[in-house]
Amino acid sequence: MPSHEIVSTRLIQSVAEARAAVLSAKVSGESIGLVPTMGALHQGHLSLVEASLRECDRTVVSIFVNPAQFGPSEDLRRYPRDLDEDLRLLEELGCWLLFAPSADEMYGRGFETYVDVGPVAEPLEGVLRPGHFRGVATVVLKLLQIVPADRTFFGQKDYQQTLVVKQLVNDLGVPTEICVEPIVREADGIALSSRNAYLNPTERKQACALWQSLQLAEQLHTAGEKNAEAILGPVKQKLAKADGVDVEYVALLQQGTIGEVSAINGPTVVVIAARVGQTRLIDNHIIG
Amino acid sequence: MPSHEIVSTRLIQSVAEARAAVLSAKVSGESIGLVPTMGALHQGHLSLVEASLRECDRTVVSIFVNPAQFGPSEDLRRYPRDLDEDLRLLEELGCWLLFAPSADEMYGRGFETYVDVGPVAEPLEGVLRPGHFRGVATVVLKLLQIVPADRTFFGQKDYQQTLVVKQLVNDLGVPTEICVEPIVREADGIALSSRNAYLNPTERKQACALWQSLQLAEQLHTAGEKNAEAILGPVKQKLAKADGVDVEYVALLQQGTIGEVSAINGPTVVVIAARVGQTRLIDNHIIG
Repeated sequence: MPSHEIVSTRLIQSVAEARAAVLSAKVSGESIGLVPTMGALHQGHLSLVEASLRECDRTVVSIFVNPAQFGPSEDLRRYPRDLDEDLRLLEELGCWLLFAPSADEMYGRGFETYVDVGPVAEPLEGVLRPGHFRGVATVVLKLLQIVPADRTFFGQKDYQQTLVVKQLVNDLGVPTEICVEPIVREADGIALSSRNAYLNPTERKQACALWQSLQLAEQLHTAGEKNAEAILGPVKQKLAKADGVDVEYVALLQQGTIGEVSAINGPTVVVIAARVGQTRLIDNHIIG
Repeated sequence: MPSHEIVSTRLIQSVAEARAAVLSAKVSGESIGLVPTMGALHQGHLSLVEASLRECDRTVVSIFVNPAQFGPSEDLRRYPRDLDEDLRLLEELGCWLLFAPSADEMYGRGFETYVDVGPVAEPLEGVLRPGHFRGVATVVLKLLQIVPADRTFFGQKDYQQTLVVKQLVNDLGVPTEICVEPIVREADGIALSSRNAYLNPTERKQACALWQSLQLAEQLHTAGEKNAEAILGPVKQKLAKADGVDVEYVALLQQGTIGEVSAINGPTVVVIAARVGQTRLIDNHIIG
């Protein structure tokens, strides 16, 4: 017998059908979990699905490569897509519903409305990807109007995104709980990301410098260092020396906020963004 | 016997209580109508409540003088407020629930999120009241997260606002139907508005020039005039001659849009904004 019974996952591409299916489950008193993704599902996504399956009666995964969150020079066109394989993975886990609308279905004619969540979206990714979080916030808000989930699952890997969606649902009173699940890493420490598929074998090895740098930050802190600059300095040096890695930012943030700290006095997130070849990667690690 | 049986209208000031009351009614299969207002209720508002009472099982009126939709030099502080009288009027009509949160209850600490609906909010009121529609769209979106109404009622008097909220719910997929009810006028034609309370007796008479100008537009069209400038010219002349009236704009818009027309070929909205003394008034009328 297989370890997982294969159940049929319902694939829905229409907004109206998705809404009707979810409302019908809610009327029956079932709790709904939503896992918003851009597809090309990997074990990071699947850990979110597994969390939703544990915590909610019905799990909806959305797959939507959202044009509104890509900049004009970004990788919208070549972003990896494999709906058949994604559906197969979700059926293995026993996911109830896969909502995979087209861009036309999500953004009908004359779409003009965007939501901005303010300062939490401004630094770091906000500087390097102007408009990105406006697109994220808008599509998450839209998804939650279509799929009014009790819980919505995001990965810790996109740390600033988790702050953006928390700000969004708190400020607008969207009745869902934002659940953040831990980063899933390969054996060599690289954080799972659909964009890892862009890396050639050399770049794939070079990309390990991100996790090694995050570990260095942890080691320095564990050895007693509290001063932010005394941790960031060696981390930046290590990244500067790493072959093929162009750092965009490294910062120490107070856990749960976008605020940089000058000293570690409690849970602190080390965030890194870097390019390896043409591929932009982000990663983070909680220390303190 | 009184013509209306006095029923108890439940007054709720907490977001959580309002949400719970509405969800409980929805779970019972009852349809919900929402009438968002800023209070100081007059027959214009009450006609919206009556429409909701006809069309929905349960009617929620919200009263919230929304700071986010007032400019720094506008009348937020002196805007008329009379919650006791408003509650009495709603009880007479048989309204189920009055949701009247404080500004702190609606915008908790750290509120930073705003929604923009794009071009429909930009001309006319958008120019004269910068940020106004951002505030309107944000609070309506927030109200609809708290009170997920099947139908939401607005007055035709705030014509551009009806376009803004339609754009909002269409673009974001908010599952409510926007219902627009006709303007209610006094015997002398002045459109009901809470801001009419600001007018002294002289200004009150002068304010009739708005309705008279809208009637002139209708008469010109009925007499066969199709050209927009040939209608707007006499209307602007009439308003320019009216004592105590400072026109801000007059425009002919294609009904259902914010687009100005050069000729009348179908339903057309004549919109006017003017100051009478210190009081800013808006009005409109459908011709064609």
